Amino acid sequence: MRGAMSQPVLYRGARLATLADPAGGLGLVEDGALLVRDGRIAYAGPLAGLPAAAAAGAEPVDCGGRLVTPGLIDCHTHLVHGGERSNEFEMRLAGATYEEVARAGGGIVSSVRATRAASDEALLGGALARLDRLIAEGVTTVEVKSGYGLDLATEARSLRVARRLGEARDIGVRTSFLGAHALPPEAAGDKDRFAGLVADAMLPALVAEGLVDAVDGFCEGIAFSPAQIARVFDAARGLGLPVKLHADQLSDLGGAALAARYGALSADHLEHASEAGAAALAAAGTVAVLLPGAFYFLRETQRPPVAAFRRHGTRMAVATDYNPGTSPLTSLLFAANMAATLFRLTVDECLAGITREAARALGLLAETGTLEAGKWADLAVWDVERPAELLCRIGFNPLHRRIRRGIAS
Amino acid sequence: MRGAMSQPVLYRGARLATLADPAGGLGLVEDGALLVRDGRIAYAGPLAGLPAAAAAGAEPVDCGGRLVTPGLIDCHTHLVHGGERSNEFEMRLAGATYEEVARAGGGIVSSVRATRAASDEALLGGALARLDRLIAEGVTTVEVKSGYGLDLATEARSLRVARRLGEARDIGVRTSFLGAHALPPEAAGDKDRFAGLVADAMLPALVAEGLVDAVDGFCEGIAFSPAQIARVFDAARGLGLPVKLHADQLSDLGGAALAARYGALSADHLEHASEAGAAALAAAGTVAVLLPGAFYFLRETQRPPVAAFRRHGTRMAVATDYNPGTSPLTSLLFAANMAATLFRLTVDECLAGITREAARALGLLAETGTLEAGKWADLAVWDVERPAELLCRIGFNPLHRRIRRGIAS
Ligand SMILES: [Zn+2]
Ligand SMILES: [Zn+2]
Repeated sequence: MRGAMSQPVLYRGARLATLADPAGGLGLVEDGALLVRDGRIAYAGPLAGLPAAAAAGAEPVDCGGRLVTPGLIDCHTHLVHGGERSNEFEMRLAGATYEEVARAGGGIVSSVRATRAASDEALLGGALARLDRLIAEGVTTVEVKSGYGLDLATEARSLRVARRLGEARDIGVRTSFLGAHALPPEAAGDKDRFAGLVADAMLPALVAEGLVDAVDGFCEGIAFSPAQIARVFDAARGLGLPVKLHADQLSDLGGAALAARYGALSADHLEHASEAGAAALAAAGTVAVLLPGAFYFLRETQRPPVAAFRRHGTRMAVATDYNPGTSPLTSLLFAANMAATLFRLTVDECLAGITREAARALGLLAETGTLEAGKWADLAVWDVERPAELLCRIGFNPLHRRIRRGIAS
Repeated sequence: MRGAMSQPVLYRGARLATLADPAGGLGLVEDGALLVRDGRIAYAGPLAGLPAAAAAGAEPVDCGGRLVTPGLIDCHTHLVHGGERSNEFEMRLAGATYEEVARAGGGIVSSVRATRAASDEALLGGALARLDRLIAEGVTTVEVKSGYGLDLATEARSLRVARRLGEARDIGVRTSFLGAHALPPEAAGDKDRFAGLVADAMLPALVAEGLVDAVDGFCEGIAFSPAQIARVFDAARGLGLPVKLHADQLSDLGGAALAARYGALSADHLEHASEAGAAALAAAGTVAVLLPGAFYFLRETQRPPVAAFRRHGTRMAVATDYNPGTSPLTSLLFAANMAATLFRLTVDECLAGITREAARALGLLAETGTLEAGKWADLAVWDVERPAELLCRIGFNPLHRRIRRGIAS
């Protein structure tokens, strides 16, 4: 019913950043108009180009010269988990090594313990508090991964909580099953066997319950090998599900090429991806999702090969990678600032990365991510004049109004 | 009148971080109690240690186990200015050099132009929007510099606006006159003459109007020499005013030693300070104010000599350095996160840096900055259990309640 029977709305007096210019750039439109009907964009472009008949009967809303962009999209988060890991942050600052943190029970497995122990309501409450921070910055679509359960029951609970986020708040949620995230203690070191369990037991059961929009994995020396990931991806392919991959974050295991081989929606992190990996992503149409939050928190020095991505035409998205250990970051604007400051993405690349390219990375580009007729009216209206103002400040939220499927919130 | 005649309040069920332990650390008190009378702290410590008679008649407030810290103090900001400089951010990302930005009219002088052109109300409105972000994170005292006027009239207007911030909001404001910030265009390159103007004409006039709590300067190749700064500091000394200095940010001009020689309240930035500079600051009791925001935005690689500060016992504070060009940052918690992540300060050092040491850097330690009987009841109550939680997340504001001089807001 949302907006289905509502009166059309005509947003006027806006500077539009449509992100829909085939020539690239932000697709800026001065004195723009945006007509919303039945929750979808009926027109987005210069006011002068809007046929008078099209807007007949529409309620006019004056944007006062504000910038209007597509609603923001955070295409990589781990929002659902129990516990928090500030003790590890503190230990590392006091000089503890990663091994010492791990021996003290830290790392992903500490979140797995806390997630298994948490009630559904506790998981939901914690995730909602974090989600509300994203929503406050104009996010209208968010991806949420499992991967802190690592047994069928807790992975299922986590994904159900992810679905409930989309019922409790006015936001689109896409779920990714990340069973191949880490090895749980009970797996006793047998990664092959656990990857088989993820592929052959967990995945089909979760898919049968309708909990999985995509399948994700963590391909890294400290996680799973390319062969183990391929096993999970083969199972996903057999079920007709798209895949994505945590690839080449800490070392080059050929994760980008592996993701490309499976036609993945996205390959994420990619600090150590090779030139060949960048080319493979471009050829496959797989989006490179850059996650500068983890780079910042882990004090990495190797930057993703942005120049190679540009050379090959690899699409780049930017996301928070919110997670309690290596990227406890719930500001997508700040992630974009870091993509600019730390990775030297341009303003245009950053804004495309949290709108159009993030939609592409979720397989949703036909529905959202740009201001184009036919798409959902997912918009953010900002108290700024220039797009760069969205990115250059930290700790300042210029959101004026957030609109999802035509409904303001 | 604020709180003067009000009923005493007894905060119970709190974890206190008093920051008042002579042995160092956070001075954590489990099951703590804090008695507030007439806007001041009458008792802060274990509930068990509070004499029953002392709390008679006090209104009890249950903190529900929350963490209570001193109200935060941002001891270095440039909140008052006209315009914004996102265009420079964009130009630099697109590959422009600092020289090209400067030739395009960028840099401090671009803010000077915009500040001179702005009305008082525009200056106030812009500064309030930024100040509100700091207040939302529990800041109860803020330092505000002039330095974007660079003529008497505009410096005076800027400092009056700074004073008005403290009337428009429930926050303590300390002003610093930063005439020796940059050379205005009309000075035609004559730094000596301009430093004389700052020292002999502007400063006395501004002091006569009661606008100056401290005198600041920018000692750097691109700004003023130690001799020019000394001239301004001599004038400040003659008027009985404390000094502080932007020192050793981009090169080692001996700024730390210069500040120490004048018994400065603080020396700020200090990335290039020497071991001797660190020792001089410690001996003089001058606080080293670390400003990781500018380090981050400028992508500096030389870190301040934190190990030397620790060796010599130099006090360290942390501030936002909010300014429109090199640190457009209005989150003190995030500045503290950067002090930890980028400069490797411990959690205890970071929290002391935005409370006790920041108060010391403003000459206000007798009045605020710790939870001790006799000081103003400037408090922040947080929805966290562990102090490290305040620092390890980005984009998440756990403030539950802010109390200034006993009044909750
Ligand atoms: Zn991730
Ligand atoms: Zn400064």
